[in-house]
Amino acid sequence: MPVTEGQKPDTATPIEQIEQASRSSMPLAERQKSNETVPLEGEKPSKNALKKAAKEKEKAEKAAKREQQEREEKEKAAANDTASHLYGHLNYEAPPPFAEKFLDLGDLEGIEENSRVTFEARVGNARVQSAKLGFLVLRDGFDSIQVVIAEGGPQKISRQMIKWCGGLNTESIVRVTGLVQAPKEEVKSATISHHELHLDSIYVVAEAPEQLPVQVKDCNQPPPGEEEGDAVIEGLPNVGLKARLDNKVLSLRAPAGEAIIKLESEVTRLFNEYMFQHKFTDIQPSYLAGAATEGGAGVFEVKYFEEKAFLTQSPQFFKQMTIAGGMKRVFSVGPVFRAENSNTRRHLTEFTGLDFEMTIRHHYHEVLSFGESLMIYIIRGLQTQEYPKKLTNIIREAGYPEAGTFQLPPGDKAVRITFAEAKALLSEAGIEGGEPHSDIDTAQEKALGKIILEKYKTDFYTVDEFPRSLRPFYTHPSPKDPALTNSYDFFMRGQEFMSGAQRIHNYNDLCESMRLKGLSPEDEGFKHYTEAFKWGCSPHGGGGLGLNRIVQSFLGLNNIREATLFPRDPGRLAP
Amino acid sequence: MPVTEGQKPDTATPIEQIEQASRSSMPLAERQKSNETVPLEGEKPSKNALKKAAKEKEKAEKAAKREQQEREEKEKAAANDTASHLYGHLNYEAPPPFAEKFLDLGDLEGIEENSRVTFEARVGNARVQSAKLGFLVLRDGFDSIQVVIAEGGPQKISRQMIKWCGGLNTESIVRVTGLVQAPKEEVKSATISHHELHLDSIYVVAEAPEQLPVQVKDCNQPPPGEEEGDAVIEGLPNVGLKARLDNKVLSLRAPAGEAIIKLESEVTRLFNEYMFQHKFTDIQPSYLAGAATEGGAGVFEVKYFEEKAFLTQSPQFFKQMTIAGGMKRVFSVGPVFRAENSNTRRHLTEFTGLDFEMTIRHHYHEVLSFGESLMIYIIRGLQTQEYPKKLTNIIREAGYPEAGTFQLPPGDKAVRITFAEAKALLSEAGIEGGEPHSDIDTAQEKALGKIILEKYKTDFYTVDEFPRSLRPFYTHPSPKDPALTNSYDFFMRGQEFMSGAQRIHNYNDLCESMRLKGLSPEDEGFKHYTEAFKWGCSPHGGGGLGLNRIVQSFLGLNNIREATLFPRDPGRLAP
Repeated sequence: MPVTEGQKPDTATPIEQIEQASRSSMPLAERQKSNETVPLEGEKPSKNALKKAAKEKEKAEKAAKREQQEREEKEKAAANDTASHLYGHLNYEAPPPFAEKFLDLGDLEGIEENSRVTFEARVGNARVQSAKLGFLVLRDGFDSIQVVIAEGGPQKISRQMIKWCGGLNTESIVRVTGLVQAPKEEVKSATISHHELHLDSIYVVAEAPEQLPVQVKDCNQPPPGEEEGDAVIEGLPNVGLKARLDNKVLSLRAPAGEAIIKLESEVTRLFNEYMFQHKFTDIQPSYLAGAATEGGAGVFEVKYFEEKAFLTQSPQFFKQMTIAGGMKRVFSVGPVFRAENSNTRRHLTEFTGLDFEMTIRHHYHEVLSFGESLMIYIIRGLQTQEYPKKLTNIIREAGYPEAGTFQLPPGDKAVRITFAEAKALLSEAGIEGGEPHSDIDTAQEKALGKIILEKYKTDFYTVDEFPRSLRPFYTHPSPKDPALTNSYDFFMRGQEFMSGAQRIHNYNDLCESMRLKGLSPEDEGFKHYTEAFKWGCSPHGGGGLGLNRIVQSFLGLNNIREATLFPRDPGRLAP
Repeated sequence: MPVTEGQKPDTATPIEQIEQASRSSMPLAERQKSNETVPLEGEKPSKNALKKAAKEKEKAEKAAKREQQEREEKEKAAANDTASHLYGHLNYEAPPPFAEKFLDLGDLEGIEENSRVTFEARVGNARVQSAKLGFLVLRDGFDSIQVVIAEGGPQKISRQMIKWCGGLNTESIVRVTGLVQAPKEEVKSATISHHELHLDSIYVVAEAPEQLPVQVKDCNQPPPGEEEGDAVIEGLPNVGLKARLDNKVLSLRAPAGEAIIKLESEVTRLFNEYMFQHKFTDIQPSYLAGAATEGGAGVFEVKYFEEKAFLTQSPQFFKQMTIAGGMKRVFSVGPVFRAENSNTRRHLTEFTGLDFEMTIRHHYHEVLSFGESLMIYIIRGLQTQEYPKKLTNIIREAGYPEAGTFQLPPGDKAVRITFAEAKALLSEAGIEGGEPHSDIDTAQEKALGKIILEKYKTDFYTVDEFPRSLRPFYTHPSPKDPALTNSYDFFMRGQEFMSGAQRIHNYNDLCESMRLKGLSPEDEGFKHYTEAFKWGCSPHGGGGLGLNRIVQSFLGLNNIREATLFPRDPGRLAP
């Protein structure tokens, strides 16, 4: 994106280059002499000419605006509009008066009746009941209020003003001032039912067009049933997922859409909080890995000047190198990239990883127990703290039946079973799991989730001791059984959202494990990673949590894209 | 990186593919029938064969280890070593006894004398004074302690054991148990000067090799003077920056290296804290932008399945779309990618951005004031809170003269000047700044930093009202002067570390501004961005802070790479 914040580049971004190109029309030699930036091909008007043109343009625009305002004023005056100063477009240069209590609509609930307040909100609905009376429903985030516009009164509201209000486009932002009053009867069309606003003045802050591609209110409910992946059934009573994602700026305005993203923020807040409480250091790994480290499927290739680079699939190697570098406990929050051509309800090509890594003193279950406590802290936090509870309620009220029903284990005592026990539970339930060390597929995971909920009364559990054949080379084998590993997956509602393990910290063991999997420790791409262990590293382990999956599972959302601000999948790179 | 945490892929990562390939030797058709993953070319042994081989290998290894241990034991016995059980390699399966007080070396300061403790630490130095007496200096993070190994005593320490300790390689990790005692005289060679440990037992947790590419102690001081960029003078008394970066796992073990990264973590902690205190939502933007959004210099291109994508240069467009989506205050912490072929002390191709965006009620200075308060909160936090103070001290003691000398403005009242005033200050000081709207270069910025420190007694200040010609198309023009903008830069010690501005929120104004800069609002790459404003958006602004530059400037580090865990520049993609 053509943005240069945080670091002023020496070379220019594309847009700056165009700008710079526009700044000079001197011949190249002179330009270099005068130390100006060399422009791109395709000459533009000179700097001064451009500046002059800009100034003139501004002036002309300002004049046009002023003229329009004057025209409006004149029209109002010609129509004998006594209220002409009480409505119109907000002029920030000469702002109209506003109440002392300039607040957010969300803070209005606690305000006394007969207070005069000002706030800004979006038009949810505009309705003229008669020439003398109009109504607006104004919305700001999770809150909405009814506004009454009645002819006369101390402000001398005019019929023209009422008509003008009735013509306001939905989704326009207005600044209103008025008296907070008790409504004659409870307001059903707004979230604030015991207050309404009797309008004094109203000014447009930002105007929305008459037509919008989707209606915000249609997005405030789960998208209609759909198949696996991005496919959606259009034309159903509410807007399909694809249309919501295409118009994310609008669907995000639905209270449920906003609440999901704000709940995600609560998860990262709680994660950060727990990490700092437990003396972890927040590290910033690199997301670009050297050309030779990777190669092939699963990894996005980046053109890096004259070389190739790759987007990391996780910060794990960096976390581990930091541990080898003497740090005991590290965490990181950041993007995870997966070049997987998967179009399912639970896969993205980019998601947010919450990663941690820690040294082990006696046994790798220190890591597993830490992970379990972390998740119970996060989920219990979402369930007991006021703000996330409010967010979850908003989502449930929008028609998501599983929001607010997530069950933690009784007494917050984590339920942990081994991979073998998971297989046995499935087998008991008549689900054939194949060979003892074969993987558990998505359908079996779902089934296991139900069995465990039934048996242990929990939607959160962990599976330990995965077979070595299912884990990467760096996973520490189990000392009990060389066919098993010191590794685990975490599940919520039968969906895996975290993998973790003890890693091999001994250089020779690591090299052996690599060779056993057909990899070379001498490979240029692995050199820096393996070296870290040659130089002495404590036993350690960790895990990576998928933020979007946590939110998806906690709320019981059908599709992970609903739990993602700007999702990326094989078919989506925008908005 | 070949890691699959957080999201179980449907398609396999390279390493998994190799694994999967190794798991089956059935012909392709059968494999597809049986629903197994299709392997890569280059067939590997069958699953069972592999498992069997692995098991056998493990067994053989275990047997070899056992044999070696037995041999060692026999040798000790043959030598009549009475202390043979008190030292050797740590066996996690049958761990030797450890003290009740198993602590971190950092927690030892408060321990009473004659306490028996166990801790793990790295060998900093090993020395045999006589056959009867040896010394170790053990280091863990920022702390080090002297360990005395004396023949005899209640444990019956043997001469063999003393000799063995003297042969321990530097950087090996050991677990030691012993008695905390007061030293005869203050210990000068360790940070813990009033305690020493009288050794009972010592076991190797992880062994480092005899030779290391750089010595950790040589990295605990600023790298030798160097030219702009990555070039370093090798062979000077301490290790050059390039060698430190090449061997980051070792240089990170130097207390100063670790403290810098931990201080960076303190900055993100304080940033997050301030954001949540002020009701900001932590958003996770995408770091991949659609093919048509960008093009050309400054942006890294990514192969995205059959299409092109680009790594975002900042989360700004996403932040703004979220504001247009009805959220009032958002922030984000994440990587920022710049495909700039700059090899200077202050440029990276990837750095960490701390971004925020907020709606504006009356005037864009709301954003600027917020940014100033945020920075004063962060810097004051670093200067007054115990832990970051400790980190800064460690860095200063390692020989960084500017660590701990950063000056905030008197009374924490932010110093703000306009761009024109900055030019005038430079001019007063005899520094010719060219045309009024020409940019201030790096040298002038440095000079300005000194002038302002002299005049206003502060290393932190902000410059407001940048000329329009120096800012991107989306920057809001100044209502006072169309040649200026509502935009600002933040400086620490004369180095810019943040750019910010009010953005144009009116769709028509934005389109005009784009056209004025030769851009097309109808461009497919801009469509989603410009649409956001068509649908009604509040006035808003924000900024992006460069985390690494904040730490670099706060500590007065010569090179931004010192303030980066795994730096990336045009010549560096590893480790």
